[in-house]
Amino acid sequence: MRCLNDMGEFGFIDRLARIIPSTPTVIEGIGDDCAVLRVGERLVLVSTDMFIEDVHFRREGVSPRDIGWKAASACLSDIAAMGGAPMYCLTSLACSGDETAVFLEEIYRGMLSAMSRFGVVIVGGDTTRSSRGIIIDVIAVGEAIGGHFLRRRGAKVGDVLVVTGALGGSSAGLHALTHGISCEELVQAHMYPNPRILEGQWLCAHDSIHAMIDISDGLCQDAGHLAKAVRLGMDLHPERLPVTPALEKYCAEHGLDPVHLMLTGGEDYELLFAADAKTVEKTMEAFHHEFRLPTTVIGAVTDEWTGVRVNGQVPSLGGFDHFKPQDPGAS
Amino acid sequence: MRCLNDMGEFGFIDRLARIIPSTPTVIEGIGDDCAVLRVGERLVLVSTDMFIEDVHFRREGVSPRDIGWKAASACLSDIAAMGGAPMYCLTSLACSGDETAVFLEEIYRGMLSAMSRFGVVIVGGDTTRSSRGIIIDVIAVGEAIGGHFLRRRGAKVGDVLVVTGALGGSSAGLHALTHGISCEELVQAHMYPNPRILEGQWLCAHDSIHAMIDISDGLCQDAGHLAKAVRLGMDLHPERLPVTPALEKYCAEHGLDPVHLMLTGGEDYELLFAADAKTVEKTMEAFHHEFRLPTTVIGAVTDEWTGVRVNGQVPSLGGFDHFKPQDPGAS
Repeated sequence: MRCLNDMGEFGFIDRLARIIPSTPTVIEGIGDDCAVLRVGERLVLVSTDMFIEDVHFRREGVSPRDIGWKAASACLSDIAAMGGAPMYCLTSLACSGDETAVFLEEIYRGMLSAMSRFGVVIVGGDTTRSSRGIIIDVIAVGEAIGGHFLRRRGAKVGDVLVVTGALGGSSAGLHALTHGISCEELVQAHMYPNPRILEGQWLCAHDSIHAMIDISDGLCQDAGHLAKAVRLGMDLHPERLPVTPALEKYCAEHGLDPVHLMLTGGEDYELLFAADAKTVEKTMEAFHHEFRLPTTVIGAVTDEWTGVRVNGQVPSLGGFDHFKPQDPGAS
Repeated sequence: MRCLNDMGEFGFIDRLARIIPSTPTVIEGIGDDCAVLRVGERLVLVSTDMFIEDVHFRREGVSPRDIGWKAASACLSDIAAMGGAPMYCLTSLACSGDETAVFLEEIYRGMLSAMSRFGVVIVGGDTTRSSRGIIIDVIAVGEAIGGHFLRRRGAKVGDVLVVTGALGGSSAGLHALTHGISCEELVQAHMYPNPRILEGQWLCAHDSIHAMIDISDGLCQDAGHLAKAVRLGMDLHPERLPVTPALEKYCAEHGLDPVHLMLTGGEDYELLFAADAKTVEKTMEAFHHEFRLPTTVIGAVTDEWTGVRVNGQVPSLGGFDHFKPQDPGAS
């Protein structure tokens, strides 16, 4: 009998999607970054992200405030991925009970800092005992501005793939943390990601953007989600991504391949979107004018295959699946 | 420095409530069963409940479907406690990865059965690896019908306290499971609670009901929440509660005190409400006519003290706190 380790996270989600019914007020259900629900005239976005000690984070080398920031940011990034406006969070916290009140409050202060930048407040949650370590589940509730939002589904043949900011920094930061290597900038990238809320809203307001996702599992894996949603192919050219000086230096010093990190490293929480090729330059210029944040064309959408290839080749390593690596987006 | 085990779950929530800001669209924030949020013209209810292996449940003696049912029901009961209409759930599931797909699907089928009775559908969630055992976080999203809902706050001096159904069955069922004693009816009460959704909505539509909560932590503890919200006293008369034949028999056979179980046993998910004393008999009659479910007056609201007493006496044992027992509702 197949276990989850054989099937992978996304294989299991596919199985689930088949047994779970829907209703007409569910605009988007299982399979996108947020659920999109009709409430009266409004579209409400809801997302949840679990953050587990020794799986998603370790206490070594980081403060409780860092942990809180990251847990909250990861969940808010799901709202960013759909171009929504986050408004509220609920937070479930499980812990052993031996933690000091100050330590736990610091986790909340970290969450609050990440949220308050976007006017998001904590409105509820649950506190309970865990059987091991700290478990945080953050639930973000937001709204689709003017009823508009971007899905994973929507990329068209001939579209270009564009990514905001830089990639690979978070996984290099994790490498530094794990190996006890001091590298402030990359550890910062790992622990203090910036969910691209305003950027996502801006992109969502532009008709030339057809599909969007946040890069939480790695460029390859997340491009695979965009590919799978429309059964098309994505051709990635990660070498086009500008390598940040910090990443380049770190990779050179520690024998790592920056392109590999940019392809497979998760948790950068940048946005990946499919855009109309004809207008993309103008869009990117306007985006840069608005946010002073670089964007890079790193691939294209094709109907020559399904799933993700890198410069036309099937990549040997997909991206991040909590249970197994898999061929991203191939169906 | 105080740790959570010294301070207790509710002590910690009080501390949190002081550091967490609010905004005007938050009608109810931290401290009630659900968050109540204004979305356009509607009031949206959101609640979350974490359900952790070896803390909230064990696999021995129960099926994965049982586990799913209970996790979903516990969360839906929070919507019942405010008289709301549950509509959607999100479910985060963390597990080791060694579980079979069938086992995990059975958990989802259990959740779906509990939800489908109320037309609730799963619209999203998260799947991830745990560092130990199964962790389920259920998030329920609902609506306040016609903008009306009941809070924990609202009990008035002279009100009577009324409880729906029977109490103590769930904790006796847990005792049976833990000790490997066969007692179908009580194990059923423990694993298959019925969130009182329709009953809650009915009560919410009656002006003579002033405050409500679901009994998840035990009558004493939950009456304490009603008391604390208005800084009043609650006098409980648990001996007025009808003891079910199954509970009476089980307690007699195993040397347990049924009144103690009814006072402190959690997870019955019945509703406890404060009602106008003058009209309560008529309300209870109409309620019984509607649902064929008994209700019992088990106490009264007083300003002679704050917190919960049992027949005027401070109880020696409060109820369920995940981190410590405490004097319920005394402020």
